[in-house]
Amino acid sequence: MLTLYYAPGTCALASHIALETAGADYRALRLNFKEQQQRSAEYLRINPKGRVPALITERGILTETPAILQFVAQTHPEANLAPLDDPFDMARVNAFNSYLCSTVHVAHAHRMRGSRWADDPAAIEAMKKKVPQSVGECFDLIEREYFAGPWVMGSRYGISDIYLFTLAQWWEVDSVDPARFPKLQAHRESMRADRVVSRILALHAGAS
Amino acid sequence: MLTLYYAPGTCALASHIALETAGADYRALRLNFKEQQQRSAEYLRINPKGRVPALITERGILTETPAILQFVAQTHPEANLAPLDDPFDMARVNAFNSYLCSTVHVAHAHRMRGSRWADDPAAIEAMKKKVPQSVGECFDLIEREYFAGPWVMGSRYGISDIYLFTLAQWWEVDSVDPARFPKLQAHRESMRADRVVSRILALHAGAS
Repeated sequence: MLTLYYAPGTCALASHIALETAGADYRALRLNFKEQQQRSAEYLRINPKGRVPALITERGILTETPAILQFVAQTHPEANLAPLDDPFDMARVNAFNSYLCSTVHVAHAHRMRGSRWADDPAAIEAMKKKVPQSVGECFDLIEREYFAGPWVMGSRYGISDIYLFTLAQWWEVDSVDPARFPKLQAHRESMRADRVVSRILALHAGAS
Repeated sequence: MLTLYYAPGTCALASHIALETAGADYRALRLNFKEQQQRSAEYLRINPKGRVPALITERGILTETPAILQFVAQTHPEANLAPLDDPFDMARVNAFNSYLCSTVHVAHAHRMRGSRWADDPAAIEAMKKKVPQSVGECFDLIEREYFAGPWVMGSRYGISDIYLFTLAQWWEVDSVDPARFPKLQAHRESMRADRVVSRILALHAGAS
């Protein structure tokens, strides 16, 4: 059995939805970030980065959302969550997911995690201030260039949809107006209406 | 034939080394970042993100280093650059590469690209100041936790080595002392001694 470590409000939502959608044999364990459980000695032995997601498998521990998403898709091919047999289409999926982790998530992280990149409190405030613009521009680009519709890659639903949906949860906290992305907003609504997605969302929204 | 767009001093070095190592049928076109060629209307049609690498294939254009590296490995299986048939080992490769793109490269980017995340010149200066620390801590973590040796994943050389080597080019410009990472420093030396790697490095070092 797989074990997923997650915390509400984090990108671990993507791995959680993917596992549930794939029908994986897994359990999900919640960390309390307010109590800094991700920094406990016990958890740092699981993930030395002190972050979620972390996925314990029988062969070892995996981290990083793009890697876990591809792993879930590859180990549950019947769920049809990625174009496993087509290197070009798979690369398009991975390019999209890489952009989410390296640019979109990073833009968002400047709202709460500015101390990673500067010590000066005024600088950290200046970073917070730019988040609505920098995050908004990322999603503008996705809306304009990288969203085929009705799903990210076109007619086929998959891990990029799950990951996009996860980061789209943050529009409101980042003061980004969803009305600016009609296609992405419709995508978020379709995802929310999904039975599996809504079940996992409710779990993440629940009290610790 | 594939076409790679690159610029010296960027992470496109990884895709370039991978293509050459794999014996791919490709040509490499250099952009001049000082002249802002990555922002030209012509190049933005190729990569709307205005960045390198971009890889033109017969089926379309790929971006993002982790995606291009996996694509090169998958389309050149005889080069043996990734554990293509083992989802867990592949996920470890992808987790490593994701960490490089989303955390290590991002820490480095705060030296020259601070304006992505703040407008205030003092904040941008404050970001520059923390780069030696934040970049150094990333490589400390890799040295301690994620480098099996002699290659990243142990006995098997692959795309994670190429990508790690690429980001390790920046230690000196980021004022990070290589002596802090004996294993990673030895890895960088082994990579530099490779005939293919040194040829591509020389190409990137040459005048525009």
